[in-house]
Amino acid sequence: MTTDQRIAELGIELPTAPAPAGNYVACMQVGNLLYISGAICLVNGAMTHTGKIGEIRDIAYGQAAARVCALNLLAVAKGHLGDLDKVSRVVQLNGFVNGVPSFADSPAVINGASDTMVEILGDRGRHTRAAVAVTGLPLDSTVEIQAIFEVA
Amino acid sequence: MTTDQRIAELGIELPTAPAPAGNYVACMQVGNLLYISGAICLVNGAMTHTGKIGEIRDIAYGQAAARVCALNLLAVAKGHLGDLDKVSRVVQLNGFVNGVPSFADSPAVINGASDTMVEILGDRGRHTRAAVAVTGLPLDSTVEIQAIFEVA
Amino acid sequence: MTTDQRIAELGIELPTAPAPAGNYVACMQVGNLLYISGAICLVNGAMTHTGKIGEIRDIAYGQAAARVCALNLLAVAKGHLGDLDKVSRVVQLNGFVNGVPSFADSPAVINGASDTMVEILGDRGRHTRAAVAVTGLPLDSTVEIQAIFEVA
Repeated sequence: MTTDQRIAELGIELPTAPAPAGNYVACMQVGNLLYISGAICLVNGAMTHTGKIGEIRDIAYGQAAARVCALNLLAVAKGHLGDLDKVSRVVQLNGFVNGVPSFADSPAVINGASDTMVEILGDRGRHTRAAVAVTGLPLDSTVEIQAIFEVA
Repeated sequence: MTTDQRIAELGIELPTAPAPAGNYVACMQVGNLLYISGAICLVNGAMTHTGKIGEIRDIAYGQAAARVCALNLLAVAKGHLGDLDKVSRVVQLNGFVNGVPSFADSPAVINGASDTMVEILGDRGRHTRAAVAVTGLPLDSTVEIQAIFEVA
Repeated sequence: MTTDQRIAELGIELPTAPAPAGNYVACMQVGNLLYISGAICLVNGAMTHTGKIGEIRDIAYGQAAARVCALNLLAVAKGHLGDLDKVSRVVQLNGFVNGVPSFADSPAVINGASDTMVEILGDRGRHTRAAVAVTGLPLDSTVEIQAIFEVA
């Protein structure tokens, strides 16, 4: 089964990759590594998930936000590679959670992205990661995730 | 035009690369990638920009802070490479902004670094990036930026 | 002297590498780079250092926390490589400190990890790094450190 077939089987429609809003690029390939800019919860020009976890938002909301970021990362990779079958491994996810002071559950939130990667890419989706809670994120996004993919 | 000529044309004088204040190094080259330690707003031993954006500082102040970080990154690269013409691409900028809780404009702040890279390096200066607001930065710096450059 | 002999000479016992608690991996080797997931102050299933620096915790406490993270990173690398002599260089440490708002001493805290790397690995332990204070860390860990090692 191709990655596209798997995505269809899961009933997922990849978003249009968001265009960078500044003097930077959505991704850059260096050798067999694809560096991808931090993805936020922006889909078709509108924010899907905003606000701090632990305040007005709960962990399930954060997991849904992390899933949106994961799909945006895949959309950027697909836009660059043409075909997600060319992703041999997800190397690294850096997960930033918009959390209240002392928020200690960033791993549970970022699992929303990790699980999405494995759901779609299988074992190729397993990655190293970090998960931290930060003070604020672009456009008040609930989650931001930066990534490195390995390209076959 | 060489990169040095372009820097002179812009009326910019690169600072002296700050020396690490601990058991670490300013940069390290691995193959064709140059990893650069997080640069803060430290020039000739004094802080140029301190304090939180959204509190006593505004976004224009943060953009100027981000520019200082960008110039420090370039100074470190020049110290290592001898010649900035050897930078083939800026691969990644990780931008950390000292922001008030829920600060949502970290991209606008980090644009101060992104624009500086493109101003000096042209298309070679376009990069992937992340921009997040954090609780605190070294010496109360307003911005910290970590980078990876590709070396020709 | 081998790295294991040096570790014994220092009276250090490496912890058991913590297993990932989700759909991710502790480390991944791509070419000669070993990416390691963010390590927290978790040893044998229990947290050794929790809470914010600047509040209930001081810098010495944070340095001890950073040392635990460094030993966990080395434990993960040893688990993957079999032998820490295969680490040719520590390329990058990304240090996240659980700090009070405006906490400005993250470098002093992360020195606890940088010093540990150099103590154990000598010049191979010198690395690039970033040090920032964040709002919250997994399980309220006082420090989290993410790393890239170069493998011989």
